[in-house]
Amino acid sequence: MDISSEPLRDDENRFVDEIAALLAPWGFAPSVGRVYAYLLLRQTRVSVDEIAAALGISRAGAWSAARFLENFEHVRRFGSVGSKRALYAISDNYASPMREQTKLLGELGRLLQACAADTAAPEAAAPLAERARFLLALREAMNTAIDAVNERTREAV
Amino acid sequence: MDISSEPLRDDENRFVDEIAALLAPWGFAPSVGRVYAYLLLRQTRVSVDEIAAALGISRAGAWSAARFLENFEHVRRFGSVGSKRALYAISDNYASPMREQTKLLGELGRLLQACAADTAAPEAAAPLAERARFLLALREAMNTAIDAVNERTREAV
Repeated sequence: MDISSEPLRDDENRFVDEIAALLAPWGFAPSVGRVYAYLLLRQTRVSVDEIAAALGISRAGAWSAARFLENFEHVRRFGSVGSKRALYAISDNYASPMREQTKLLGELGRLLQACAADTAAPEAAAPLAERARFLLALREAMNTAIDAVNERTREAV
Repeated sequence: MDISSEPLRDDENRFVDEIAALLAPWGFAPSVGRVYAYLLLRQTRVSVDEIAAALGISRAGAWSAARFLENFEHVRRFGSVGSKRALYAISDNYASPMREQTKLLGELGRLLQACAADTAAPEAAAPLAERARFLLALREAMNTAIDAVNERTREAV
């Protein structure tokens, strides 16, 4: 299949640009944002060669972006990493990156609690402990929200 | 004041290292994570020179990390940017970075909705629209959670 014979249409390119611009301030390199957008658009398993051809980037760049996205569970890999035959698809487990984030809130909250108790100067302990309470309460609330949204999504299917 | 005469204690250094390690996978460069941790620990306004001396990094590195954190509203600046007299402190508006994130979820959800309606191939439209619904519902739920936690924090003060 001559995959390079199917370049993105203008409206597809616009979508890819918009997603990449939106995610750039969140630490997504431009190529990462573009690969994410392309996989959103396709909603199917595609090869690294296909990603590279569609977006006009190098194979190494496409592979590195896909791997970054895989690490954060935004995309799934089918096949061995680095293999010519490996395919990537956007993950349909929407909640997974969010769960990672609530985990971070929990770990941060616990570190701040311990710092307030053992390490911080007396005048810093109270605001640190208050921030820890906020983070831990927000984590609980977000987990509840993700559960509820997941539940509704499952019911709607 | 000879600020370099007050190096961090071992337990303070450990806290700084732990916070930096925790935040590294989230796109915080090591110096950014360390400056964030130091400002958490201090809970007061400090100069760029003081940050640099305490963490053993360059003034330019400390300033660039502080600016990154300021952009995401994790820290507040007091005084002109780049000025020798500018002071930085951890922001006490905990919710602000979270609000930025719910805003992102909303913008991403709306882009996916539009893509599903106008751009995506027929077989991609349904999963894209479903993902958009998840993002928008999660944004609402998170906003509600942040409001509730903020409200409790205010009442407890």
